[in-house]
Amino acid sequence: MSAEIICIGTELLLGDVLNTNCQYLAQELANLGIPHYYQTVVGDNVERIHQVLEIAIKRASILIFTGGLGPTPDDLTTETIASFFKTPMEEDGGIIQDIENKFTSVGRVMSPSNRKQALLPHGAISLPNPTGTAPGIIWQPKDDITIMTFPGVPSEMYRMWQKTAVPFLKSQGWGNDIIYSEMMRFRGISESALAEQVTHLFDSNNPTVAPYAGKGEVRLRIAAKARDKNQAEALINPVAKEIKHIAGLNYFGSNEDTLASVVGKLLNTEGQTLSVAESCTGGGLGSMLTEVPGSSSYFSGGVIAYANQVKNALLNVNNKDLEQYGAVSNIVAEQMALGVKQCLDTDWGVSITGIAGPDGNTVEKPIGLVYIGLATPENKVVSHEYRFGKQRGRELVRYLSSCSALDLLRRSLIKRQQD
Amino acid sequence: MSAEIICIGTELLLGDVLNTNCQYLAQELANLGIPHYYQTVVGDNVERIHQVLEIAIKRASILIFTGGLGPTPDDLTTETIASFFKTPMEEDGGIIQDIENKFTSVGRVMSPSNRKQALLPHGAISLPNPTGTAPGIIWQPKDDITIMTFPGVPSEMYRMWQKTAVPFLKSQGWGNDIIYSEMMRFRGISESALAEQVTHLFDSNNPTVAPYAGKGEVRLRIAAKARDKNQAEALINPVAKEIKHIAGLNYFGSNEDTLASVVGKLLNTEGQTLSVAESCTGGGLGSMLTEVPGSSSYFSGGVIAYANQVKNALLNVNNKDLEQYGAVSNIVAEQMALGVKQCLDTDWGVSITGIAGPDGNTVEKPIGLVYIGLATPENKVVSHEYRFGKQRGRELVRYLSSCSALDLLRRSLIKRQQD
Repeated sequence: MSAEIICIGTELLLGDVLNTNCQYLAQELANLGIPHYYQTVVGDNVERIHQVLEIAIKRASILIFTGGLGPTPDDLTTETIASFFKTPMEEDGGIIQDIENKFTSVGRVMSPSNRKQALLPHGAISLPNPTGTAPGIIWQPKDDITIMTFPGVPSEMYRMWQKTAVPFLKSQGWGNDIIYSEMMRFRGISESALAEQVTHLFDSNNPTVAPYAGKGEVRLRIAAKARDKNQAEALINPVAKEIKHIAGLNYFGSNEDTLASVVGKLLNTEGQTLSVAESCTGGGLGSMLTEVPGSSSYFSGGVIAYANQVKNALLNVNNKDLEQYGAVSNIVAEQMALGVKQCLDTDWGVSITGIAGPDGNTVEKPIGLVYIGLATPENKVVSHEYRFGKQRGRELVRYLSSCSALDLLRRSLIKRQQD
Repeated sequence: MSAEIICIGTELLLGDVLNTNCQYLAQELANLGIPHYYQTVVGDNVERIHQVLEIAIKRASILIFTGGLGPTPDDLTTETIASFFKTPMEEDGGIIQDIENKFTSVGRVMSPSNRKQALLPHGAISLPNPTGTAPGIIWQPKDDITIMTFPGVPSEMYRMWQKTAVPFLKSQGWGNDIIYSEMMRFRGISESALAEQVTHLFDSNNPTVAPYAGKGEVRLRIAAKARDKNQAEALINPVAKEIKHIAGLNYFGSNEDTLASVVGKLLNTEGQTLSVAESCTGGGLGSMLTEVPGSSSYFSGGVIAYANQVKNALLNVNNKDLEQYGAVSNIVAEQMALGVKQCLDTDWGVSITGIAGPDGNTVEKPIGLVYIGLATPENKVVSHEYRFGKQRGRELVRYLSSCSALDLLRRSLIKRQQD
């Protein structure tokens, strides 16, 4: 009894799309304890999909398909599976209605080609798609074969998997032992330095501890296999506690926590508000802060001061300092942080000014040089210098700048609470 | 004559690793014009690798393996391929020397386990690994079968592929034809509606035309097989021209173009400047605009007006209107657009105010309701209402809002140029 993942799409064979679906499904199968020995990718081609099915039904009993459920002629997964099992297709009125509703709700009219998405093999159950138009199916064409299909769009696939496939597979007896994990998140330490500090934990069997490099953060995943969540947490918690003790302030949160959400909680606890002044990030820090639902309780807004004129006019940055020290300098970062705090009348002000590249750099001010300013409720202002390196590229320098700004504020808030 | 990619590694089946190697190899094969219809992933298991080989030699003539070349006991790719073809392994003295040199150069001693990496099937040629210790092989165990193996570490694999596999495949006559493609990008039309308009092109063989759904855009990929880039463009250009004619203003650019870069070019042409006023997107539109290098020539900055107080204080939005119509309304969007344009002294002002969710919605103002305001150089102001739907989630509503704001500005700029 094992599963096989079959991803359908000529775009995968051309390398136009990275197959993240396969990794997601592999992790999910591992979490449910379902053995899985093969993954196959094949194009939108009837004959070759039939050949893949011929092989797969001999070596697996749960066949999980992604891709090829769209409305266009090259989307032929459902009909090809049906024809392989010599089963006629039937139109499902409920699906048509659902697709029509989705179009109506955004003020559009359903295209005739979408009708095709309502055709299911006789005997198959439709697997609703909450976000897109393409539903999937769960179907047992033979006693020992279960087929599940999902769209190729990752966000749609994830939601359908969680909402319908996981409950179904659990009802079939899978996932009795769960794999439960805590993803611990760190900023201010490299992956290798953290790994060296906790290397004695990597040999542990249950829970396992493994390092992951993330964008703007380092992660450690503690995973336990257990009968239920309580038992898993009893295995995980002592290890997590030890790691927190070792990492100190470099640990900022676990699982769904982000630097922005952690800062938000700290500000809410203090009942304080925040505004931002952004130059090179152009709004990225504000965007990161407002990813958090409910951020309006502490985040007032900010000024995107891309042009020097805006730095002066709205943030009261001294024109002479802009000229003498340049926009990318400690003194300008400090004035921006203080300026935005006063302009928007908030407790805290955070500023970012830097050289994201690919141009605008000099010998003294290389790409990746960033100053982050922080103005406290008492109007004390500090600025820190960061050098993210020219090899990282514009997007990553901007991203890391926003992360560092949040991390600077986080550490300040925690230190004030500890004092 | 076609290739099959076979990736070996239990970590791929557990979902611990994203299979970027497969995408890389798929792109490379496409560039060389080598047909490729299947990708297979299998664990570090002798019996199952044999089964995969059994299938692959029937459907492909070039088998490209990644993974399982390391020194540990679970790395068994080479010996398993050899045993499948009943061929003995032989130690290659040159490889031993090479591995020893690599260890010496970093002041370490070669582990005994590395000796294993010098074993090749009789008749195979070693494929040097410039960076790591694991060499690969090129081997023709039968007349019509060529086997190539690469390590699983992406950076090592990429270099070996370029340095040794590409020259070898070219020497075999591949890569004389290239596959060259144009990715056309659209906004303002659904994938299915666009597909219906260009459905007659989907049967074309060279170039091929295929639709892709993207985040905030729809794409059509035109791909041509030809002797060189000029010949490919001669095949692609008439089709692209026809599609542009059909799609009209819904087509916004190709390949590396983004909505933000296209808007940037249009503003640069006019010598005009832009500022933004963002509520629900919190800086996302500014961040998108400043992703484009050189955006400072037309983008001055903006105001993140998350709190109503900021809308009034900095953008001069009327407090009575905020109270009477709410922050998410046509009138407030209009005042924000005009306000930011005047505050930052730019030619254009664009504003976004909406309900991204998950809270803050009412019956009249559901999640996904967004107003986008646009103030022209002549201080004419319009606002458009968008309904992105509550099922899409906070992040996507925010992302689509920024896309729509850029698209609104793009269309206005083009229409002015046409007038």
